[in-house]
Amino acid sequence: MSVPDGFLFSGVHSGVKKSDKNDLGVAYSSFPSTVAGVFTENNLPAAPVVEARRKLAEKDKFRGLIANSGVANAATGPEGDKRNRKMIEETARCLSVAPGDILSASTGLIGKQLPVDKITGALPEAVDTLDETINQFSKSILTTDTKAKTYSVQLQPLDATMVGVAKGSGMINPRMATMLSFVFVDYPVNPGWWQDTLAGACEQSFNRITVDGDMSTNDTVLAFAADMPNKKRATGSDETSDLLAEALQEVCSNLADEIVRDGEGSTCVFEVRVQGAASKKDAENVAGEIAGSSLVKTAFYGRDPNWGRIYSSVGAAGPEVEPGKLKISLNNTTVYDGKPLDPADNLAEEMKNTDEHVVEIDLQAGNETARKTSCDLSEKYVKINSAYQP
Amino acid sequence: MSVPDGFLFSGVHSGVKKSDKNDLGVAYSSFPSTVAGVFTENNLPAAPVVEARRKLAEKDKFRGLIANSGVANAATGPEGDKRNRKMIEETARCLSVAPGDILSASTGLIGKQLPVDKITGALPEAVDTLDETINQFSKSILTTDTKAKTYSVQLQPLDATMVGVAKGSGMINPRMATMLSFVFVDYPVNPGWWQDTLAGACEQSFNRITVDGDMSTNDTVLAFAADMPNKKRATGSDETSDLLAEALQEVCSNLADEIVRDGEGSTCVFEVRVQGAASKKDAENVAGEIAGSSLVKTAFYGRDPNWGRIYSSVGAAGPEVEPGKLKISLNNTTVYDGKPLDPADNLAEEMKNTDEHVVEIDLQAGNETARKTSCDLSEKYVKINSAYQP
Repeated sequence: MSVPDGFLFSGVHSGVKKSDKNDLGVAYSSFPSTVAGVFTENNLPAAPVVEARRKLAEKDKFRGLIANSGVANAATGPEGDKRNRKMIEETARCLSVAPGDILSASTGLIGKQLPVDKITGALPEAVDTLDETINQFSKSILTTDTKAKTYSVQLQPLDATMVGVAKGSGMINPRMATMLSFVFVDYPVNPGWWQDTLAGACEQSFNRITVDGDMSTNDTVLAFAADMPNKKRATGSDETSDLLAEALQEVCSNLADEIVRDGEGSTCVFEVRVQGAASKKDAENVAGEIAGSSLVKTAFYGRDPNWGRIYSSVGAAGPEVEPGKLKISLNNTTVYDGKPLDPADNLAEEMKNTDEHVVEIDLQAGNETARKTSCDLSEKYVKINSAYQP
Repeated sequence: MSVPDGFLFSGVHSGVKKSDKNDLGVAYSSFPSTVAGVFTENNLPAAPVVEARRKLAEKDKFRGLIANSGVANAATGPEGDKRNRKMIEETARCLSVAPGDILSASTGLIGKQLPVDKITGALPEAVDTLDETINQFSKSILTTDTKAKTYSVQLQPLDATMVGVAKGSGMINPRMATMLSFVFVDYPVNPGWWQDTLAGACEQSFNRITVDGDMSTNDTVLAFAADMPNKKRATGSDETSDLLAEALQEVCSNLADEIVRDGEGSTCVFEVRVQGAASKKDAENVAGEIAGSSLVKTAFYGRDPNWGRIYSSVGAAGPEVEPGKLKISLNNTTVYDGKPLDPADNLAEEMKNTDEHVVEIDLQAGNETARKTSCDLSEKYVKINSAYQP
């Protein structure tokens, strides 16, 4: 996996997680980086989210990131804020930068105080092992993920590289985002444009996926763009900016895709494509209702072409809909077109042969569209989430 | 189970269901009954819902009800309307009443045409076996329910009896209702008052439960009040009306309770009690978000006091909330009070010893309250719903 110049990464086991897996990651930017951030819409955000939001409102240049998994530092009151600051201060000290130049992120169990002494104890090792590979760092943010998620783009015309990492699996919902995702590029950018570009990329990626409809306290996406010397800053209205924006969208889309594919306990994904809606909101509501329906999700788990549940979700979504105009297709087979059709006998069989399904809805009420990607709901999801506490 | 005078019930197997279980029920009112109805808010209602709504808008006196399980007659287009009318016409013919005097309801698979010939073939037997017991009728409307749900109240001062039946299990969501519920009482009522009273009773019962957040195409509650001779009609502003309203609330509440206790695959129920909200909508949103969260539901399945998921749901629900004022209790143990508390060690143990849990939220932002009852999410729910199609 290629990483951009000027960034160093590490990941170690500090003991926050009981297992021997990585639970602490550091990213260091040799040059000051312009950072954009998108955060959870949850009204009870975790301590690191509150602090990162505050810092990003004040300034846009940072030098590094400390992230841990195992404990989310959410629902932890003023003590949680204090421990988050301590984690940041110790990282800054080890990296010889100012605490104001470091951002933090946490993921894991909500409601438990962060064992910050374990983190500060492991920080010297984390800083000593910083290097130009991102593998250990990408592992350090995982919780129930079955694999690390990384994606890299070469921007040859800019002599630059963009790399992103993410963790997801549960508490994934389109109202914001992923759990955590961090993107790094060795190219200087205009801060306002970079923030807008990240928000737009999230809207078309992390905000289009759902695993379980639960919105986390900790969702954070941060994008670091390093002030490399001898490179002309992307202004937002030049060809360079277009290349960077495209790359950012590609990285976010691919990471979002990996998150939903690795949804807790999932065995398949399905994309919901809505067209013909009277308004964008209608289109989004219909796509979201289908993507989030427990009954639709369990039907996909059983590879059961029970499209009646899709029909019911369309009606439950809110917008008025003409049953005589509505059209529903499942994996390219039209199952309802103003009335129920006898689908090809082999639809059930075909569903068994793929892990990627497509639901198409045409409301025939306008021209607005929406897309969402979801995964199935399996017994394993229940198993994972009924015994999560360490 | 006591039933009101003047009503006759039956339930038979017609063959709509492949198993040999009851799938067709008839209720007959010897005297004209004033009927109130509350229906699904789904914008794609099933054929019997469309027809019953239309009839209730036109008149308020009816003589009977035909209900089937196995096929929902939803997503069936104009042919579905035709088959629903045929089912009603044949019922009317067998009962020697006008088709306009009969209401219908269906529940089961969505998107399949109703095998109406099986129903008309079995109707003579259903009418021949009408009697003053409700047992076979109550079984005829079940789908994935593990048991029949009936509840009866004696109204001694009125020399009357009220009985209700219900079916539930899946596609249960607070936005309306249950799947099907029918209530019968041998007492004459004022139609407008009866409709308002039923709507109010549903609001405080079927609209306070959630199993899976999916809103059905077929949800129907009908309440029959027979024009018994020699009884003084309840006007809505007399003591008699108060007694009837109380009884209707008691019947609906008990049936709603039975539905959530028999939620698909559920092993326990939990009641969410929200207080201190700034508005009624805030209180309802917070209660609904917690009651509907897959992560909260799986935690209850695992009897895991993972209250962080409850905290996260409060933040996801929409209303602004002060983390320093918020208070969360689980089964009478305060787990968060402006900051996380170390709950008694025995909370996890206590949770294992009960199938009825209580979540209490105090937002300390006002005086509004809300309650919702939900059930846990188990592997069995997934199993039931991943292989439902017959």
